Amino acid sequence: MLKGTTENLSKSKQANLSKSKQIVGEILRLNEDPTVHGVALHLSENAYSNKILNAVKPEKDVDGVSDVNLGRLVRGDTYNCSISPTASAVMELLEKLGKTILHGKKVLLVGTCGPLEASLQCLLQRKGAMTMSCQWKTQQLQSKVNIFLCQIIRSHSATLQCILSKLMKLSPTPTCTAFLNSAIWIWITPTPLGEGKSTVTIGLVQALTAHLNVNSFACLRQPSQGPTFGVKGGAAGGGYAQVIPMEEFNLHLTGDIHAITAANNLLAAAVDARILHESTQSDKALYNRLVPVVNGVREFSSIQLARLKRLGINKTDPGTLTADEISKFVRLDIDPSTITWQRVLDTNDRFLRKITIGQANTEKGFFRQAQFDIAVASEIMAILALTTSLADMKERLGKMVVANDKNGQPVTAEDLGVTGALAVLMKDAIKPTLMQTLEGTPVFVHAGPFANIAHGNSSVLADKIALKLVGEGGFVVTEAGFGADIGMEKFFNIKCRTSGLVPSVVVLVATVRALKMHGGGPNVTAGAPLKKEYTEENLQLVADGCCNLQKQIQIAQLFGVPVVVALNVFKTDSHAEVDLVCEIAKQSGAFDAVPCNHWSAGGRGAVELAQAVRKAASQENSFKYLYNLELPIIEKIRIIAQKVYGAEDIELSPVAQSQISRYSKQGFGNLPICMAKTHLSLSHQPERKGVPTGFILPISDVRASIGAGFIYPLVGTMSTMPGLPTRPCFYDIDLDPDTEQVKGLF
Amino acid sequence: MLKGTTENLSKSKQANLSKSKQIVGEILRLNEDPTVHGVALHLSENAYSNKILNAVKPEKDVDGVSDVNLGRLVRGDTYNCSISPTASAVMELLEKLGKTILHGKKVLLVGTCGPLEASLQCLLQRKGAMTMSCQWKTQQLQSKVNIFLCQIIRSHSATLQCILSKLMKLSPTPTCTAFLNSAIWIWITPTPLGEGKSTVTIGLVQALTAHLNVNSFACLRQPSQGPTFGVKGGAAGGGYAQVIPMEEFNLHLTGDIHAITAANNLLAAAVDARILHESTQSDKALYNRLVPVVNGVREFSSIQLARLKRLGINKTDPGTLTADEISKFVRLDIDPSTITWQRVLDTNDRFLRKITIGQANTEKGFFRQAQFDIAVASEIMAILALTTSLADMKERLGKMVVANDKNGQPVTAEDLGVTGALAVLMKDAIKPTLMQTLEGTPVFVHAGPFANIAHGNSSVLADKIALKLVGEGGFVVTEAGFGADIGMEKFFNIKCRTSGLVPSVVVLVATVRALKMHGGGPNVTAGAPLKKEYTEENLQLVADGCCNLQKQIQIAQLFGVPVVVALNVFKTDSHAEVDLVCEIAKQSGAFDAVPCNHWSAGGRGAVELAQAVRKAASQENSFKYLYNLELPIIEKIRIIAQKVYGAEDIELSPVAQSQISRYSKQGFGNLPICMAKTHLSLSHQPERKGVPTGFILPISDVRASIGAGFIYPLVGTMSTMPGLPTRPCFYDIDLDPDTEQVKGLF
Repeated sequence: MLKGTTENLSKSKQANLSKSKQIVGEILRLNEDPTVHGVALHLSENAYSNKILNAVKPEKDVDGVSDVNLGRLVRGDTYNCSISPTASAVMELLEKLGKTILHGKKVLLVGTCGPLEASLQCLLQRKGAMTMSCQWKTQQLQSKVNIFLCQIIRSHSATLQCILSKLMKLSPTPTCTAFLNSAIWIWITPTPLGEGKSTVTIGLVQALTAHLNVNSFACLRQPSQGPTFGVKGGAAGGGYAQVIPMEEFNLHLTGDIHAITAANNLLAAAVDARILHESTQSDKALYNRLVPVVNGVREFSSIQLARLKRLGINKTDPGTLTADEISKFVRLDIDPSTITWQRVLDTNDRFLRKITIGQANTEKGFFRQAQFDIAVASEIMAILALTTSLADMKERLGKMVVANDKNGQPVTAEDLGVTGALAVLMKDAIKPTLMQTLEGTPVFVHAGPFANIAHGNSSVLADKIALKLVGEGGFVVTEAGFGADIGMEKFFNIKCRTSGLVPSVVVLVATVRALKMHGGGPNVTAGAPLKKEYTEENLQLVADGCCNLQKQIQIAQLFGVPVVVALNVFKTDSHAEVDLVCEIAKQSGAFDAVPCNHWSAGGRGAVELAQAVRKAASQENSFKYLYNLELPIIEKIRIIAQKVYGAEDIELSPVAQSQISRYSKQGFGNLPICMAKTHLSLSHQPERKGVPTGFILPISDVRASIGAGFIYPLVGTMSTMPGLPTRPCFYDIDLDPDTEQVKGLF
Repeated sequence: MLKGTTENLSKSKQANLSKSKQIVGEILRLNEDPTVHGVALHLSENAYSNKILNAVKPEKDVDGVSDVNLGRLVRGDTYNCSISPTASAVMELLEKLGKTILHGKKVLLVGTCGPLEASLQCLLQRKGAMTMSCQWKTQQLQSKVNIFLCQIIRSHSATLQCILSKLMKLSPTPTCTAFLNSAIWIWITPTPLGEGKSTVTIGLVQALTAHLNVNSFACLRQPSQGPTFGVKGGAAGGGYAQVIPMEEFNLHLTGDIHAITAANNLLAAAVDARILHESTQSDKALYNRLVPVVNGVREFSSIQLARLKRLGINKTDPGTLTADEISKFVRLDIDPSTITWQRVLDTNDRFLRKITIGQANTEKGFFRQAQFDIAVASEIMAILALTTSLADMKERLGKMVVANDKNGQPVTAEDLGVTGALAVLMKDAIKPTLMQTLEGTPVFVHAGPFANIAHGNSSVLADKIALKLVGEGGFVVTEAGFGADIGMEKFFNIKCRTSGLVPSVVVLVATVRALKMHGGGPNVTAGAPLKKEYTEENLQLVADGCCNLQKQIQIAQLFGVPVVVALNVFKTDSHAEVDLVCEIAKQSGAFDAVPCNHWSAGGRGAVELAQAVRKAASQENSFKYLYNLELPIIEKIRIIAQKVYGAEDIELSPVAQSQISRYSKQGFGNLPICMAKTHLSLSHQPERKGVPTGFILPISDVRASIGAGFIYPLVGTMSTMPGLPTRPCFYDIDLDPDTEQVKGLF
């Protein structure tokens, strides 16, 4: 009987093998058939085998996926098969399809959700099937997100243009001030290695949509090319929680950052050119050039008419201005020593941190000291993230202050006549770019302001559009950079004031590694191997470090929004360590605290988190801002320093004091505050881990981004232009000229 | 009887009016119908009326279009109507459709060729129907160009990726060295106003395809944003000979120039950072950083292995290098005084012409003098225009020389380890962008190298792909900047050597205005009104100026290719002037000379030119290069100066002489020559018009673009960074935030 069973099994196995070979042949035939426009290959979750998984696993190590049974192959509508091919048959199929796709014959859609699909995509991408990862899982998006999102992979397409003008009208504009079905994520005071911020966001939406069948959208920031080619590398997430196509995400994408660079630098060029022209021309010559006779007619442009109005000159005929009015009109009288508008580049170029410009003879001795910042530090980027419409963006661009005139009055982009041109350069960048996760969840990628000198949050527009798209009961998970002291505080006090929206849940990302560091563990440095304290169980370090987690939870509670702690589990974390963190988090006031394994298991690894977030979102929400805008600037700074950072008090430098009184006089005193502080400590000193106390926060300078709409006090010196290390990331980045595959970009 | 007729006419008119109202209603209904996916509106050429034309005419003045009869309305496949609506009915329809489209309800395709369609597009664009001009006239392209070009408006789309890898294989690779069915256009030594170079190209392809039913493609350069916002304005053509959508063409388009900026500046940052790191670290420290231990393993990257090979070190294990080998490997020993690689921006920023970089404390005193060029002056742009494949581009990028080392040996991008990253940044830019003319003729927009310090021609890849697409009997009209002395000479001696292709016809663009200037007319200055010599008939000036035209024809004949003169007619030109130019041109050896009215009449106005070009292309072609590459650099320069410019001889500065001997020693002596000379005169002095003689051409310096593959002698000083004037173009550029329409961009 035993023998018979074995024989039967063997026979059935053989039959299965032969059948699955047939299927492979059939699919390959269909793939070649010119009348068939796509082959959808569905592999059920139980189709994993070690052999397949080993063959298709992504570059980085993956654990947590175990040996499972064979699955079945189904081709879309027209081809359906219920038998189970062997692992080797699947392998053979993948090999052959990989080659076929390489030859560009047919698009292959892989329709299964979960880690296996991620693996297949990685494999097929390695094999040259670039088209695949760019293909929208239209059906899934249609049914889940309930709109026609086909072929909108790029924000530049005509279709996505509609999103701005039309999709904003999809459902009635929310009148409530809370955006209840949403979550923001915030991470704990991080180590220099990062604690997996992007992966949690992506894992969470994958869990919500692909596993719990809840509409969801992730709103991510676009990464700068500086770090991508410099030290840090890309930012598309990792493991089985990634944004695809990863190459596009980490490269130019739809050119938004390049547009910012172009607009920023046009304004910078206009400032210096104007100073030169005013210094070398008479009032009359300037007037003749600014308001020339064209085809016998002399007219003011609309931007010039607006300037006349601001100057109190209510005339429209250029011939009627008095000499005095002409002088007022043509001279901005910029004081070169007050110029705050810098040039930018999206490259880590440390040699541009301090430069002298204007040294050619043609600039007639008007040289001055200046600097380049990284493009994402431009005020225009901060505006892009905060704007709510084209009209609003144009207004903000015009209001940007570039310098003071010799009377101490602010000179704006509008005064230079460049508002319209800046808006034209930014007209496509204002549209969020739609991408997807490995499991087909939609992702808006939009804006990416510097998180120290600016607010570090993804865009208001992307949040608003995504909220409409997910509909009732859906979730928008939006990114806020750095810890609760930096990312969350700015999110609530700056971004929420602009958008009028409030999230229903704060997701706080923690790692055992970061908590151990806060508990007194040794230094963590990028590039150096981790000390054994971080790779072996050490409950005492974890327990001691949870003070930081507790403080972060308390900061969130200041705003009245429930907190869910997502513990991003690494393979070296012990069960006891994981349990300890979750226990302490809950004791510290978190609504819930759950471990997440999205990196190794995709959305499936974040299902528990998704459930906790849903539950928390149904709670009562008693949101409040931390400070009233009408308070004096100094008071607002003090409230943030004391309530959020835990400082005893603040200390202003004389420069900071005089800047504050200047901004107050200029009428900018009612703006929110955007602290420029390190993210590596709750205090201003990066080396002080845990919960520092008893410190006085020094404010060295105070600056303003009037267009973006905030005052930013500098706590210490902030580098706004990173440098290239001895061995930059670019050493490992390469392009295969035959397959067009990008290598080494993470 | 008369009365009866009038009555009948009136009745028939009324019936017509009522019928056409029905049609308007029907089309509007269809436009709202959710089951109808597009309404194609065909207006035959005889549907013009002054009322329509006045309402829809573009911003600039248009003449040459006369009053014509009413037409008919047809909706695509499913809606067909043979009656003629009245002009007012058409107007009403346009008004309503404009509004409907504005609300984003439906795509409208306007399927008529010719000026009226251009007008309709302008009107509808003004009304917010942005989608329309972006719609491909798929059917026309399919039947005319014989490929599936739907939805390839952007080079970034997955579909156009195929073009590079697949379309190059569409037809057998040509084995001939002549690309017979093609034409290049070249203009006469121009006035500072330009003589209508883009419009002739566009008019010619419109005539060929929309009127003579011949497959054709225009290959244009992408304009820089510098001039667009500075002095010159956009470059999309004008009148009824334009590339659409004009806004995209003049703005970021698909980001190619931004990609060049990013790649150029990453390399520049790498040069300075490397000098700093080498100066502040020991051999051992450098080695540990360049070849770090990662997860316990120490490996060379592939770009490092290649460097070892170049150094003659045949080792692959990092542990086995001797101290001496390590020192050779880690030190590039760049001599900062020899750095030729400059940073770039696509902005007219004159204050960056000469700067001092590295003045921050973090750069430890390694400041030096440097400069920014306009992005299109980057060697990477010259490479983009000359490259033939991804593999070729990567090789050229790696070969770019950035400086010499302290032994006088060239240091390349490959030595800095950045080749792969540069190729990755340029991977999409290498794909030509497909656009269309107002009359639906396909246009490749690709690359746009500076025409003075580089070769100024559109891309080899676009030409090659377009040649395959037009098929046998089709025409590719490709752009070459400036006059025969600059654009054409470089086209033949540099671009044709790279591509292995030779055109069958040279189209020389002339204007009565430019010829009058060469004949001794007063100065022509941008911005100032034209003197009466240019607006009134003056046959003597024209006759005298034709010496320049004659010389240009003779230059073309040096290369053995027939010349067709296209006289771009302005409304102030008299018949006698036009006839005189054509007569002299033919006497001077032109195959033919014809007047063109494409600006006012679209392709219809260039039909005579198209016919002349077709005829000339069927002539015997006896192409030859002007010089042999093996000649010494000095000889090659002398041949160009004497045979093309008409110089008596050349005179080298000591710097130029030493550079020539350095390049010859370094093995670069066999490269072609790319003269950096003014385009405003055949000589080196812009003010010398006509045909200057008896001059000695001074060569002040000689430089090299090794990656692009040419040596460029400087004839006088060449500005590589334009400035902003007192009243830049940006004053008039604006964005309507409601309709998203761009204003003031020409």
